[in-house]
Amino acid sequence: MTTPLLGQMMDVPLNVSSLIAHAARHFGDTEIVSRRIEGDVHRYTYRECEKRAKQLAQALIALGVQPGERIATLAWCGYRHLEAYYGPTGFGAVCHTINPRLFTDQIAYIVNHADDSYVLFDITFAALVDALAPQCPKVLGWIALTDEAHLPPMQTPVLSYETLLAAQDGAYEWPALDERTASYLCYTSGTTGNPKGALYSHRSAVLHAYGASLPDAMAISAGDTVLPVVPMFHVNAWGIPHAAPLNGARIVFPGKDLDGKSLYELMESERVTFSAGVPTVWLGLLTYVKQADVRFSSLNRTVIGGSACPPAMLRTFQEDYGVKVIHAWGMTEMSPLGTLATLTWEQSQRSLEDQRTLREKQGHVIFGVDMKIVDPDGRELPRDGVAFGELHVRGPWVINRYFRKDDSPLVDGWFPTGDVATIDKDGFLNITDRSKDVIKSGGEWISSIEIENVAIAHPAVAEAACIACSHPKWTERPLLVVVKRKGAEVTREELLAFYQGKVAKWWIPDDVAFVDELPHTATGKLQKLRLREIFRDHVLPTAVAGAV
Amino acid sequence: MTTPLLGQMMDVPLNVSSLIAHAARHFGDTEIVSRRIEGDVHRYTYRECEKRAKQLAQALIALGVQPGERIATLAWCGYRHLEAYYGPTGFGAVCHTINPRLFTDQIAYIVNHADDSYVLFDITFAALVDALAPQCPKVLGWIALTDEAHLPPMQTPVLSYETLLAAQDGAYEWPALDERTASYLCYTSGTTGNPKGALYSHRSAVLHAYGASLPDAMAISAGDTVLPVVPMFHVNAWGIPHAAPLNGARIVFPGKDLDGKSLYELMESERVTFSAGVPTVWLGLLTYVKQADVRFSSLNRTVIGGSACPPAMLRTFQEDYGVKVIHAWGMTEMSPLGTLATLTWEQSQRSLEDQRTLREKQGHVIFGVDMKIVDPDGRELPRDGVAFGELHVRGPWVINRYFRKDDSPLVDGWFPTGDVATIDKDGFLNITDRSKDVIKSGGEWISSIEIENVAIAHPAVAEAACIACSHPKWTERPLLVVVKRKGAEVTREELLAFYQGKVAKWWIPDDVAFVDELPHTATGKLQKLRLREIFRDHVLPTAVAGAV
Repeated sequence: MTTPLLGQMMDVPLNVSSLIAHAARHFGDTEIVSRRIEGDVHRYTYRECEKRAKQLAQALIALGVQPGERIATLAWCGYRHLEAYYGPTGFGAVCHTINPRLFTDQIAYIVNHADDSYVLFDITFAALVDALAPQCPKVLGWIALTDEAHLPPMQTPVLSYETLLAAQDGAYEWPALDERTASYLCYTSGTTGNPKGALYSHRSAVLHAYGASLPDAMAISAGDTVLPVVPMFHVNAWGIPHAAPLNGARIVFPGKDLDGKSLYELMESERVTFSAGVPTVWLGLLTYVKQADVRFSSLNRTVIGGSACPPAMLRTFQEDYGVKVIHAWGMTEMSPLGTLATLTWEQSQRSLEDQRTLREKQGHVIFGVDMKIVDPDGRELPRDGVAFGELHVRGPWVINRYFRKDDSPLVDGWFPTGDVATIDKDGFLNITDRSKDVIKSGGEWISSIEIENVAIAHPAVAEAACIACSHPKWTERPLLVVVKRKGAEVTREELLAFYQGKVAKWWIPDDVAFVDELPHTATGKLQKLRLREIFRDHVLPTAVAGAV
Repeated sequence: MTTPLLGQMMDVPLNVSSLIAHAARHFGDTEIVSRRIEGDVHRYTYRECEKRAKQLAQALIALGVQPGERIATLAWCGYRHLEAYYGPTGFGAVCHTINPRLFTDQIAYIVNHADDSYVLFDITFAALVDALAPQCPKVLGWIALTDEAHLPPMQTPVLSYETLLAAQDGAYEWPALDERTASYLCYTSGTTGNPKGALYSHRSAVLHAYGASLPDAMAISAGDTVLPVVPMFHVNAWGIPHAAPLNGARIVFPGKDLDGKSLYELMESERVTFSAGVPTVWLGLLTYVKQADVRFSSLNRTVIGGSACPPAMLRTFQEDYGVKVIHAWGMTEMSPLGTLATLTWEQSQRSLEDQRTLREKQGHVIFGVDMKIVDPDGRELPRDGVAFGELHVRGPWVINRYFRKDDSPLVDGWFPTGDVATIDKDGFLNITDRSKDVIKSGGEWISSIEIENVAIAHPAVAEAACIACSHPKWTERPLLVVVKRKGAEVTREELLAFYQGKVAKWWIPDDVAFVDELPHTATGKLQKLRLREIFRDHVLPTAVAGAV
């Protein structure tokens, strides 16, 4: 092999600091508005933001923080949190955002596993920090994101963020870093086992910011006022804190109040054009908007992800309120954006009903992510909208391993997402299950989610879960576990008959179990693992008969 | 220094082949429509395009082409040219697009300087190839972009592109290339001296494609049908052949007929939503549309660049036809996109007249480009919209040297564009002159373009050029050279009086010379260098008097 002929282009590394420097330099007067924990509304510009991020870098360096060290945050969406995104990363340290909604023990595990040297926290989390501090002896300092006057009474000795910054002049030049240097650390919420860390690089964060900005992704422009409802402790608020400065967009940070009324009033008063968040928050917003009988006067689109967006929510936003909804899918291990359901030119020529169906799927990948579905032997399955298999992804913003884990999670160079999905001929992804929940019957797969969706459509069913039961002939067969609506009645036979014509015959559950309630996690997710334990000894009638 | 902590992300190089692979895989059915040199309209999909690009790669490899070799093109916008963008670059060779409108001697110089091994050409250029071939003995083969049936009678022995492709099966895997590998070679048109080559890398082309796709740049989405009027031999058609597959956009290639009627009919019949080109072509289109009294039924926006867009054209498109115009600036040395005049949220709240003024400027940079204006000593000048200095740029898609030139063109790591400009507090660029044309009077600069614009506004002036004349006290002072309108009369004194109150007093020319015509290049550009030679011995009255 000869040395390749190299292009003769400038060698400019992709550094996270370039994002805020670009905004400060070319959109210096553009505003960042924050509803503060202290109760008031704070306004400043990208120019001031970069200066304070530099002051933070100087303050951390003065405290002795070295490149590579982890600086953790426990904070809502706000300007100080944005500074904490850019200050540490700007000189090669890592910004480690922690979800304060996790159990205290989980947070302590994460702080200790990440070996965080300093933790920056909003004063709403003072009690949490007092509970954490004794469990995290290696933390060198806890820094309250406020001034001296607002320091809450605490057992833990804390530093004031504003005092630290005031001691610095901001006359700091961001160094050029190797673009593979670590930038952000985000832990998965960990429904099974301990949380695992995804350690992003500068390169991956900047490329993801380009991807997130694309017209078929968030389409963030300098003409937008962006309100991230998705918290900045949740996979870097889906990249908005990077995509907004990349494009010079105005930002409005909502702080801690994410109820419908607070969000609506902020959107209206600040003329927000774009927002992004999870379905639960949008449900609160839509409920408020309906009750108060008000309209959105500036909001024109929203990205909904985190969990599947209910079709009714899509329709309400689009058809009742004229707000375009972009359904999205991603995960912590992919920075997080993977797919978004925006339509192609050809798709937009189809019937409105067909377009609705497409928008309810998770959509197509953005450039930077490749995806495929594979069968249990790892062979790629066809893109016909019917075949479903485990979803694998790859690309420059997908992890290749977890932080401080030696074993590679990759399969043939691809990251297995743990989701089961179909991909149609348009390249549209539709997540049908989690791979650990799918039912493997006679070498074929049955989607537990589709079985549950049919059950929920029955008027007597309040909640339903479909799990695998072991079967001597088929390995696994589906068992439907049902909570009946108050006062409603339905029999096993009626429910099974309800499936006729709605799913393939061999997908119909072998049995139905009625229970008073289903087990859930603290964040409301169905605990199928627990349910499978409860029904481990359940004997399916077909298992006794020896036939389906 | 310790080794930095690296992120744990997949190491996926930014390769040009990923763009077409992405489109083929995720937007496989999306159409590419081409008006062919052969006279008909050709349709196929991204899937077929990638397959044929792979066949081309195989064919070139079979011919013995090695990675790093240059494969030249002399071709219009069409699907075979698109294949020529991806076939050679996909295996590490370089696609070298040549402007067939240059003088034959210049093209021969370029082919020989680049050491092109094969030249792919549209059959409209058969005579040009016959003229070139004897001057380019190192070219191993001339490949006509057509099938055997359409091969024109020629003196030069040529190969048929379709015959070469038919011998290959397309079963080829794009190799992963070092992203710094050379990808495209584009020569500047060279108004002074020989043309110079800009050698892009895979990394720069992919990053530029992200940048070109941004909502404040071309905003190309899968919902678009894109018609590149800017030729594919002109700085990679401003990146559209990369940005379109990156986003899965439908493409319509116009072939060789770029007159108003041909363009309009193609835009209408193919429902084009977005286009990009130089002012001259748009003038032809607008003239046709007005004469034929027709409207655009699908076109919603266009990028205009290459030379300054006349304000009247901006208004006609936007106000008479509802087509949004995005004024852009760039250059071959920067891949080419630098700035685009899209408005921020705050700017869009200003008066319509203020918005118009902003849109007439060249706009703000997109992320990936940084710019500054400097004084003759290299000190950065303020961004106040008044101070003007030489424009310097830098970024990952800006060259660091010219192909096969040893000396670096950079100044302190920045590329000096040769343009003189102001930047206002909004970060909006306004090009006021070429640095070689600016008049340096007593250490201060005078914009020749502004002086000319005033002169042209005088009813008796048909054309005007302002050049520097040497001056014993002020080093240089402006001389205005004027061609009078047929039948109109105006005196030196009347013209000089016309400047009162329109420019700073010391900007008023010291003298006026009346001529019958001004010297122009073959492509219609004013030859100021020639004009300065003609007036080298001109004595300014103030030089004699010794005072201004």
